[in-house]
Amino acid sequence: MNITIDFTHDPAAASWVAGANGHSDFPVQNLPLGIFSTSDNPTPRGGMAIGDMVLDIPAIAKHLEGDAAAAAMAANAPALNMLFKVGRGPITALRHAVFTLLTDTAMQAEIEPALHKADGCTLHMPFVICDYTDFYTGIHHATNIGSLFRPDNPLLPNYKYVPIGYHGRSSSVRISGVDVKRPSGQTKAPDADEPSFGPCKRLDYELEMAIWVGQGNELGEPIPIGDAEDHIAGISILNDWSARDIQAWEYQPLGPFLAKSFHSSISPWVVTMDALAPFRTAQPARPEGDPAPLPYLQDEADQANGAFGITMEVLMTTSAMREAGDAPHRLSQGPMTAMYWTAAQLIAHHSSNGCNLQAGDLLGTGTLTSGDEGGKGSLIELTEGGKNAITLPNGEKRTFLENGDEVIIIAYAEKEGLARIGLGECRAIITG
Amino acid sequence: MNITIDFTHDPAAASWVAGANGHSDFPVQNLPLGIFSTSDNPTPRGGMAIGDMVLDIPAIAKHLEGDAAAAAMAANAPALNMLFKVGRGPITALRHAVFTLLTDTAMQAEIEPALHKADGCTLHMPFVICDYTDFYTGIHHATNIGSLFRPDNPLLPNYKYVPIGYHGRSSSVRISGVDVKRPSGQTKAPDADEPSFGPCKRLDYELEMAIWVGQGNELGEPIPIGDAEDHIAGISILNDWSARDIQAWEYQPLGPFLAKSFHSSISPWVVTMDALAPFRTAQPARPEGDPAPLPYLQDEADQANGAFGITMEVLMTTSAMREAGDAPHRLSQGPMTAMYWTAAQLIAHHSSNGCNLQAGDLLGTGTLTSGDEGGKGSLIELTEGGKNAITLPNGEKRTFLENGDEVIIIAYAEKEGLARIGLGECRAIITG
Repeated sequence: MNITIDFTHDPAAASWVAGANGHSDFPVQNLPLGIFSTSDNPTPRGGMAIGDMVLDIPAIAKHLEGDAAAAAMAANAPALNMLFKVGRGPITALRHAVFTLLTDTAMQAEIEPALHKADGCTLHMPFVICDYTDFYTGIHHATNIGSLFRPDNPLLPNYKYVPIGYHGRSSSVRISGVDVKRPSGQTKAPDADEPSFGPCKRLDYELEMAIWVGQGNELGEPIPIGDAEDHIAGISILNDWSARDIQAWEYQPLGPFLAKSFHSSISPWVVTMDALAPFRTAQPARPEGDPAPLPYLQDEADQANGAFGITMEVLMTTSAMREAGDAPHRLSQGPMTAMYWTAAQLIAHHSSNGCNLQAGDLLGTGTLTSGDEGGKGSLIELTEGGKNAITLPNGEKRTFLENGDEVIIIAYAEKEGLARIGLGECRAIITG
Repeated sequence: MNITIDFTHDPAAASWVAGANGHSDFPVQNLPLGIFSTSDNPTPRGGMAIGDMVLDIPAIAKHLEGDAAAAAMAANAPALNMLFKVGRGPITALRHAVFTLLTDTAMQAEIEPALHKADGCTLHMPFVICDYTDFYTGIHHATNIGSLFRPDNPLLPNYKYVPIGYHGRSSSVRISGVDVKRPSGQTKAPDADEPSFGPCKRLDYELEMAIWVGQGNELGEPIPIGDAEDHIAGISILNDWSARDIQAWEYQPLGPFLAKSFHSSISPWVVTMDALAPFRTAQPARPEGDPAPLPYLQDEADQANGAFGITMEVLMTTSAMREAGDAPHRLSQGPMTAMYWTAAQLIAHHSSNGCNLQAGDLLGTGTLTSGDEGGKGSLIELTEGGKNAITLPNGEKRTFLENGDEVIIIAYAEKEGLARIGLGECRAIITG
């Protein structure tokens, strides 16, 4: 597998868009793709984030040629699915062309009319999601959760062989910022004879990353791991909200269902594989004694460079904190290399039975808890199953989420000598 | 909940379409909806099955008025999703209007050009499937499968309270007739130290029925059970092919994944709730000692009339049987009332956490094994986990499916004094 490192973009390059320089998530080296609309043009269409602005891609098609122009025209749609069907070549060409336009001050006057203040834009779901699959690649999370049920044997025997995953609900994925309504459902207290129906009492977040499929495969034609990378459009941040009490009662024998399907939140910007290329890193070595992946999941280049050098943070506020003007409180920080399997291994495994992936499929990584104390990616881990409440800076305590709580997940990549790039944020408030 | 019994259709009425009378699945009392195309007009569009013909719905719009005409125009699309968004009223109006046109011999000359021989039509997926959810309502199946793992306690404690279900893969659902390619995957023999990757050795079918969602709900707004019936478009036949050996190794703790996602087969015709109305029947009484459903799953009219009086049969042929011209061999026959939960209960439960259903969502009933010896809906049940092979009339033996085997599922409703209606068939051949 070849992971192309995009050296053509000078890491020191600055854009004439003032807000793109400095500490922005969106310098000219990033150029993530999304769908936006504006009050004067409410038709959702493809955009790129640049600093504190959004670039209207179809509006600059006239300044482009060849593949880049074709990609810009395919971005004139209410979702990115069509754009990614055009293929990675044209998308990379578009990226190069926009990089040039936004760094060449001679183009400023011509391009500026296609820029909109991000504050004034409405951001929409980047893709029409075909199928949503949630994996379980966070081995520390799997171990922590397993420990709550099986202290002596937290990881099941298949974990280190099978990239465990399950089908999720695509209809209820919503863009960052949409409130999350607390679900009701059947729960059964350990000491109760019968279950009862009512509002979830153990509402949790899950820190995940989203991998978007850009190129699908035909039914019956698995994607070899060496080709898997070419099928990925990019990544975003995912919060897979979880009703722990509903899950505990419903999930045997077929897995989580209503405990997850009430809402999942996704960040609006798709950071492309081109932008991420300089931040790719080795898959962490498997601990001594762990089995080697089966051949269909093995690729040397993937092991050497298939992971993402991204840092993720979860922050929260309560109603009281927001009223008092308190800063969000950080609950965890950790690396995306907490994934036991790479994105390419997930693609290869998912299609290994012939299952057809499609542009716009969403793959969740599963909760990415790090091996460190400060890297727990969910409240059930932070509070040890709700037994030990956490205390917020203002003295409020939480075991699980209360109405009015807001969870904010951010993620970014930093590396010596490179421009820092960010994924933006995935945030939502719980309502009753 | 009101289940409208459609008395307006004379059960003795005959159509001037000759093939619609006699033992056809598709008399004028049925009029199921589907998507078809013809060699002279390859654009997929809405059709109705009538005897051995397919009626081109958009082509007769000019003979219709009001709601019926609106519905006929909404059927001018490559999937039925738009038609069902128009609402049940117009679809019922269309049904009545077509009933009149096809029974009134004065209309024959005008309507005949819109009829195509079914043999010459290509049938397509009736809906663009948004999400596919597979339930587990077959209590005899759940008991049989549970017995293989837990002989003393086959049903888990939640079974009689929670309509157990899980998210399925929508991208790999294919219309009846499309070959099923045997999947490969990880399996682990009980005595092996490690898993290996290769072709599935325990490939099975699952006899299921499909419930199509016609009307969705908004995120966060559950569908009360009393309204659930109005959200159903109709039913079809579903074969949820299963790789038992892949499933056994992968399914803990998050449920079936690649064991199911390689292919599911669906019959092409959607038999509407109007056509089924005269065949609705009482939900079988819960055995003595079973708990009552929780209030959100209880509805008196649903208990009295929420089940479907439908008979289902599984038949198979092998390559050798087809070469010899042997008739298909029946593997099982049983009633759809094997469902422990009604369709309305599935809709109410699915949306009870606020999850939004959408027109085109596919709900599988789960394998519908009856309580009788002749009603086992899968090979894993018929062969007791592969231990006791079945013998076919020509002497061939099977534990699981071999390449070249064809599985055919049919379903029909019969009742004294009513015209028999059928659902057509769901068939596919296994390839290597």
